Amino acid sequence: MSRVTVSRKAHFNAAHRLYRKDWSDEKNDLVFGKCNNPSFHGHNYDLIVSVTGIIDQETGFVIDMKVLKELIKDKIEDAFDHKNLNLDVPEFKDLNPTVENIAVVIYNKLRPMLDEKFDIEITLYETARNYVTYSANNL
Amino acid sequence: MSRVTVSRKAHFNAAHRLYRKDWSDEKNDLVFGKCNNPSFHGHNYDLIVSVTGIIDQETGFVIDMKVLKELIKDKIEDAFDHKNLNLDVPEFKDLNPTVENIAVVIYNKLRPMLDEKFDIEITLYETARNYVTYSANNL
Amino acid sequence: MSRVTVSRKAHFNAAHRLYRKDWSDEKNDLVFGKCNNPSFHGHNYDLIVSVTGIIDQETGFVIDMKVLKELIKDKIEDAFDHKNLNLDVPEFKDLNPTVENIAVVIYNKLRPMLDEKFDIEITLYETARNYVTYSANNL
Amino acid sequence: MSRVTVSRKAHFNAAHRLYRKDWSDEKNDLVFGKCNNPSFHGHNYDLIVSVTGIIDQETGFVIDMKVLKELIKDKIEDAFDHKNLNLDVPEFKDLNPTVENIAVVIYNKLRPMLDEKFDIEITLYETARNYVTYSANNL
Amino acid sequence: MSRVTVSRKAHFNAAHRLYRKDWSDEKNDLVFGKCNNPSFHGHNYDLIVSVTGIIDQETGFVIDMKVLKELIKDKIEDAFDHKNLNLDVPEFKDLNPTVENIAVVIYNKLRPMLDEKFDIEITLYETARNYVTYSANNL
Amino acid sequence: MSRVTVSRKAHFNAAHRLYRKDWSDEKNDLVFGKCNNPSFHGHNYDLIVSVTGIIDQETGFVIDMKVLKELIKDKIEDAFDHKNLNLDVPEFKDLNPTVENIAVVIYNKLRPMLDEKFDIEITLYETARNYVTYSANNL
Repeated sequence: MSRVTVSRKAHFNAAHRLYRKDWSDEKNDLVFGKCNNPSFHGHNYDLIVSVTGIIDQETGFVIDMKVLKELIKDKIEDAFDHKNLNLDVPEFKDLNPTVENIAVVIYNKLRPMLDEKFDIEITLYETARNYVTYSANNL
Repeated sequence: MSRVTVSRKAHFNAAHRLYRKDWSDEKNDLVFGKCNNPSFHGHNYDLIVSVTGIIDQETGFVIDMKVLKELIKDKIEDAFDHKNLNLDVPEFKDLNPTVENIAVVIYNKLRPMLDEKFDIEITLYETARNYVTYSANNL
Repeated sequence: MSRVTVSRKAHFNAAHRLYRKDWSDEKNDLVFGKCNNPSFHGHNYDLIVSVTGIIDQETGFVIDMKVLKELIKDKIEDAFDHKNLNLDVPEFKDLNPTVENIAVVIYNKLRPMLDEKFDIEITLYETARNYVTYSANNL
Repeated sequence: MSRVTVSRKAHFNAAHRLYRKDWSDEKNDLVFGKCNNPSFHGHNYDLIVSVTGIIDQETGFVIDMKVLKELIKDKIEDAFDHKNLNLDVPEFKDLNPTVENIAVVIYNKLRPMLDEKFDIEITLYETARNYVTYSANNL
Repeated sequence: MSRVTVSRKAHFNAAHRLYRKDWSDEKNDLVFGKCNNPSFHGHNYDLIVSVTGIIDQETGFVIDMKVLKELIKDKIEDAFDHKNLNLDVPEFKDLNPTVENIAVVIYNKLRPMLDEKFDIEITLYETARNYVTYSANNL
Repeated sequence: MSRVTVSRKAHFNAAHRLYRKDWSDEKNDLVFGKCNNPSFHGHNYDLIVSVTGIIDQETGFVIDMKVLKELIKDKIEDAFDHKNLNLDVPEFKDLNPTVENIAVVIYNKLRPMLDEKFDIEITLYETARNYVTYSANNL
């Protein structure tokens, strides 16, 4: 039986700064440029969570979108929205909040909450021009 | 020789209701919530049909977009647009018109009309926030 | 002192049918075409509510967006979302739910809830290609 | 002779916090909610600058879009992009950076740079759902 | 009685070149830059035609969108789509096809086809970042 | 270690004509229709370049977006923007500039500039309704 991918969009607005504590200011500036502003800058992040599985023949759903929507709200939006990723979100205490790393953190927070029978993929837009896609299965 | 995927967008506006005739009203309400409104609600569905194949060296086309556009119009838009999916579309007489099931029905209507050399994928947006992707090859 | 317009987007998904009870089927078909399908069809309506006023020097707000968001939810989204406009919404019992008339109904529901010092404008998208704008001041 | 409005889009990514230094934490929380996070949050701001005037019969332009694009870059993008509005931008040292106030500041920075024969309007999106429009002529 | 504005989107894809026959190559390059490429370049133009009037109490329409859609197709899309504006469209034989001038030409072609009781406004996107708005009433 | 895909959007505006020099006018008209206008037509092309690789543990980047942005500008935007693809771009001297062929040309121009450890995918929108995706790995 073939599988269907169900995708749900969400969003959060956050401040961040790209830098490494163990690098000099000069090296941080060289590598991260204006993203290294010590006063922070910010983004409207647009998030897509994609869940792939077989259609339940009872309901016609792969997964109940209402459940997926609430899960994203509880685990991601409530944790990241209107926050400073570097200062307020524990996962980035020692991890540079690049859009790549944020996508992996989101994946790792959601993966254990969803049945193992599903494949999960995260797409995260940092701006309308920059985005990343991540799935642990993408070897 | 590598392959290219060609995608064409279309749209249709339709009413629907999520429910099972063989369930009680209480169970339908529990599972489908406000999507079970007996008076129906509706959506602007945005459809993307993706066709993957080798570029024809004569024309530079994988498939003629004008042909694909007309096929989508004849088989999908004319059948679904300004319709009530539950009442007017035979495929949903005994099939719950979830966005997952609509995508599979669209795939099954288009697949026999397109050369076997092509792979086909259907992406269907029910709202700007909810969408599904389906291909029979996605095992 | 100059004025600023603050706009908030919202959305609702609804079924409807364009027709007049006092017309024959033939006349309804002639005037409303496929929008007159007796089984209904539907749309994702995108709504923009624009409020024009002076910036409050205390808060820097024309109007608190959280208050405006909640007002739209209470008065419009909860009343229209996942509804059949013809059957479930009292305002359209004897009023044809064209996008023009829906916009005027929304204006008339919100206008008394907002301070008289504000000007109000309603923009309503029925599809990505069709939309209307209404303000009672537009003589 | 009739007039034409020419609009140019731009964008900048910035951190900010809504609060008043002269208010208690409790009052700031009550009025500004999660926008008052002391660690800041941020947005991708989308800016539209609209210039209204008569078409120059020599060039067919109201204003040269390249000139307008460069002006927005020099005066707004370079000043606001990847900045903390509260900490890095002098205009908000004692002015709460609500989207209303940011739009007025942008207007006041651009107005003197553009010929008096033009009318100017600023549209500023803080998110895809919240935006403001400002023109000093809007009495 | 208040008035409602009804807007309809359309699009056409065309080539053009910005230049004046009566100017030297140097002056054309200086003023129009890369838009003066003698081989032409092109755009996907997105057009919005807005019609303002009173809601007809019989139909609930300001104007029948089907009629407006067909009018735009006949007068604008069929005349401009897949054309070279400089070479194929008579209105630009001696008129520089800037986005400002194209908008005025569209207005002048549609205005006589629509009842005098309506006000008409043209919005024309040359790119996602550049657009113009024109109405003969905008003095 | 899993891999992340990083995507960057860019755009260029160009004229083109679909036809084969070695075909008669009748055959070109039959196959390419209005896309065969000898005076050319044009499009706003939207380009997405996707790079898949492992996150660098030093920087948190798969690839520095600033480097990718500059590469796209140097190799694609400067070569294609405000050009006539048939007349000004050497790759299309004897190759029909269908959107499929343009995507392959872009891939072939960028592939040697990017480290072999990366997989590359090109998505190219010719209009908002037509687009293609190409990767040499898509067998």
